[in-house]
Amino acid sequence: MTNHAFYMELAIQNAQAMKGQTDPNPLVGAVIVNDSRIVGIGAHMKTGEPHAEIHAIRMAGEKAQGATIYVTLEPCSHQGRTGPCARAIVEAGITTVVIATLDPNPLVSGRGVKILEDAGVQVITGILEEDSRKMNEVFNKFIVEKTPFVTLKSGITLDGKIASHAAHSKWITSADARADVHQLRTENMAILVGVNTVIEDNPELTARIPNGRNPLRIVLDSTLKIPLAAKVVTDKLADTWIFTSAHYDQEKKEALENLGLTIFHTTDLKHVDVKEVVQILGEKSISSLLIEGGGTINAAFLENQLIDKAVIYIAPKLIGGKTAPTFMEGTGIELMSDAVELVDTDIQKIGKDFKFVGYPSYKQEKVEG
Amino acid sequence: MTNHAFYMELAIQNAQAMKGQTDPNPLVGAVIVNDSRIVGIGAHMKTGEPHAEIHAIRMAGEKAQGATIYVTLEPCSHQGRTGPCARAIVEAGITTVVIATLDPNPLVSGRGVKILEDAGVQVITGILEEDSRKMNEVFNKFIVEKTPFVTLKSGITLDGKIASHAAHSKWITSADARADVHQLRTENMAILVGVNTVIEDNPELTARIPNGRNPLRIVLDSTLKIPLAAKVVTDKLADTWIFTSAHYDQEKKEALENLGLTIFHTTDLKHVDVKEVVQILGEKSISSLLIEGGGTINAAFLENQLIDKAVIYIAPKLIGGKTAPTFMEGTGIELMSDAVELVDTDIQKIGKDFKFVGYPSYKQEKVEG
Repeated sequence: MTNHAFYMELAIQNAQAMKGQTDPNPLVGAVIVNDSRIVGIGAHMKTGEPHAEIHAIRMAGEKAQGATIYVTLEPCSHQGRTGPCARAIVEAGITTVVIATLDPNPLVSGRGVKILEDAGVQVITGILEEDSRKMNEVFNKFIVEKTPFVTLKSGITLDGKIASHAAHSKWITSADARADVHQLRTENMAILVGVNTVIEDNPELTARIPNGRNPLRIVLDSTLKIPLAAKVVTDKLADTWIFTSAHYDQEKKEALENLGLTIFHTTDLKHVDVKEVVQILGEKSISSLLIEGGGTINAAFLENQLIDKAVIYIAPKLIGGKTAPTFMEGTGIELMSDAVELVDTDIQKIGKDFKFVGYPSYKQEKVEG
Repeated sequence: MTNHAFYMELAIQNAQAMKGQTDPNPLVGAVIVNDSRIVGIGAHMKTGEPHAEIHAIRMAGEKAQGATIYVTLEPCSHQGRTGPCARAIVEAGITTVVIATLDPNPLVSGRGVKILEDAGVQVITGILEEDSRKMNEVFNKFIVEKTPFVTLKSGITLDGKIASHAAHSKWITSADARADVHQLRTENMAILVGVNTVIEDNPELTARIPNGRNPLRIVLDSTLKIPLAAKVVTDKLADTWIFTSAHYDQEKKEALENLGLTIFHTTDLKHVDVKEVVQILGEKSISSLLIEGGGTINAAFLENQLIDKAVIYIAPKLIGGKTAPTFMEGTGIELMSDAVELVDTDIQKIGKDFKFVGYPSYKQEKVEG
């Protein structure tokens, strides 16, 4: 009896273990099984190094002959440092290939399968497809759209607030949830806040966990009112980029640039256009962006359908306050039927708090003929 | 080997099955085990009918001799229709009694155990205590405090709103969650809303599920502005009580009374005092109250520490809106350290939505010497 899911799960686990060390390449794992015994395992570990299949094939040696390989992503068809993996699989004598997800890049998707099938190898696809796809959600978007995968993060009370009516917010969530946020920060290439957050909280926006890699810090600041003494300006713990409107203070811009910051301006005279922000970030090869904004910035990203994933930490607390802020403000929708639904949702307990994860499902815009 | 939890679990399941049919008595279940075999099961089914232990003892017959009885609540010590259960247990020859929770009434708690121990019966307490206590949370409060157990219910979006900025709220949660709300309604003796909810939504406030028992409907209405054509005034599907302030329209009061409604007034001239409301409800033997208010009414109950349990349905939707209402308004607290924490929390998926349950843990008020 074959147990495709069992072996694919192992391939996914090995792939997942390399999280954060393969960028800009995706996570990929492989397992080779011959006569019901695992004879090789592999994972992609670093850009420029062998792909998962190659490691597994080398480990299996002669036992790859007549074996089945489980691989989380369609074997590549292009000539890389170690040749097309699809070709290497054929040459190793492997007779069955089980694939979780096809290549997300429409330009090459299916080509690896074709090489295999043309060589008489049996190909089975779609085993644990969803798990594998989610593992590379950032890569899958960026390779196609060339703009960052945007994760909205917020920590809220059960009654939906991100601060009291007196703007007090330390702390809403418990230490466990806050540690999880630092993990989120290290997994994202950049973190974005509004200038008001910088003025009110003077945050470092760093990943304060063991082995934490600090993300690039991005501040939206339409008038360049950021204080020159702010930590993100002075502390050198990570780079800071500021996005402003077309109507900014040239002198302040130079002062900030002299302190080592990078300033971008978008085309609108009054506001920072968030659509332009993600375009520019994409051009700068920023593939993942974590939004830790207040209700206005979050709403701007939502209204422009730029949020790919929401991670909301819910603290089981009630604080009340008609004027206490929530994490999603702006004008908002009018009819409940226009709400943005989140799908593929999950909730888990983290310490005292709950961590909600979901993916906005934007309705297709109606196109007027 | 004995497995106390296994048998107590069965006793709890049988007790729980009688939910809604034992009022004002608590839910109680019993299991008798002799020589590793279950020889009797019982549950309290209706006020005036035998207690759980009596049913189980009758079923066991002679096999109760030398047996162990598992009972979810301390056997009673008072002379009821079937005598004190503690005495009946002794007379049946049972030699071990395993109890989940002691009697919540401080006047009699421990008396049943004393009768048993004085007669040489071995008593073990605290097996699945929390499960059993929670099963009778309404009874446990009412028997001691003589005011209703108050459950706050709300259905909210993930961004914390109960309606859009344009007051649109149909529907926030899915059909599965709404069916669960109807179950909550049938489990509560009364349901409370503010008059604005009546004016805006004209709800029936009934339990629209199979075998649903409609709760008493309570409307807080400080000026008696409720429309005479409102469904809760005219539909006769359940009784409706209105609580008003001391400053009400006598003519309107009489009109409502002529339509069969009952009007109570509290002592404050402007507002309905929610503390007086729960006192009056307690005097009228209302042991459980479901609050389905808006943010103002909910905040009044929270500020007065009157909420015993919160049941919040969270729809995975984002709607935005700086002015969109949340379920907890009022002034609110200022410092996060003054938040009301909810403990013993649980969250479950219901259809597309999530059902959160928690118990407010009010900080001890500081008493000024």
